[in-house]
Amino acid sequence: MNLIKRLALSIALACGIITLMSHSSAQAGDAGVYRHVVLFKFKDSTTPEQVKTVEDAFRALSTKVPTITGYEWGTNVSPENKNDGFTHCFLVTFKDKAGLDVYLPHPAHDEFKSILHPFLEKVLVFDFVAQK
Amino acid sequence: MNLIKRLALSIALACGIITLMSHSSAQAGDAGVYRHVVLFKFKDSTTPEQVKTVEDAFRALSTKVPTITGYEWGTNVSPENKNDGFTHCFLVTFKDKAGLDVYLPHPAHDEFKSILHPFLEKVLVFDFVAQK
Repeated sequence: MNLIKRLALSIALACGIITLMSHSSAQAGDAGVYRHVVLFKFKDSTTPEQVKTVEDAFRALSTKVPTITGYEWGTNVSPENKNDGFTHCFLVTFKDKAGLDVYLPHPAHDEFKSILHPFLEKVLVFDFVAQK
Repeated sequence: MNLIKRLALSIALACGIITLMSHSSAQAGDAGVYRHVVLFKFKDSTTPEQVKTVEDAFRALSTKVPTITGYEWGTNVSPENKNDGFTHCFLVTFKDKAGLDVYLPHPAHDEFKSILHPFLEKVLVFDFVAQK
């Protein structure tokens, strides 16, 4: 029974260490990543269907560039009215600057821009390396 | 020996399930979170020391409001020159809109704003609920 207990304890301990390691590496993976923040304001003439076409095209783009490690987006819901007319935010994450360097000139990015540009009134792009 | 093997297998399986569950909940925790994106441009007269005072004060603020579930920031490194003069981005995460509702009128937030405002040329705030 002693042997069983010791074996069980060892396995439980090993699993605990593995779990802790996988968590801390997920956190370390966030600090230092390259965040690419993109804001859009569409022309007043843009229909909801055309806006959805752009949203879908950006989501599709995020699956076509292998250096993209994270992708999320949403429309503005701030109650502060300091969004300067921007309605859409896209948060694209790369491991590092080299990831962006693959993305910017990528043919899928050019294709997306040709879908976007007829409807775009203005864009803001801000990139930062995530610090805590 | 059979008993030991079965016990070891059961524990390993349980640990595996726990690890998988903790990972999938971390991912599910990202979709649907409330992202508060804040951009600053400082007045030209602001010194590097004054900028650092604001950076440190925002980091301190992030530890004073219990509804903040994530905090990161960085200065602009985009090569695209579409950042409209903004130099600093702060990405503050809440579980939901209720988290922001605690943050906005919080005394620590007011205190931070009094430190920030003498140096602030302009600010942009964009909030979104994270979708994939």
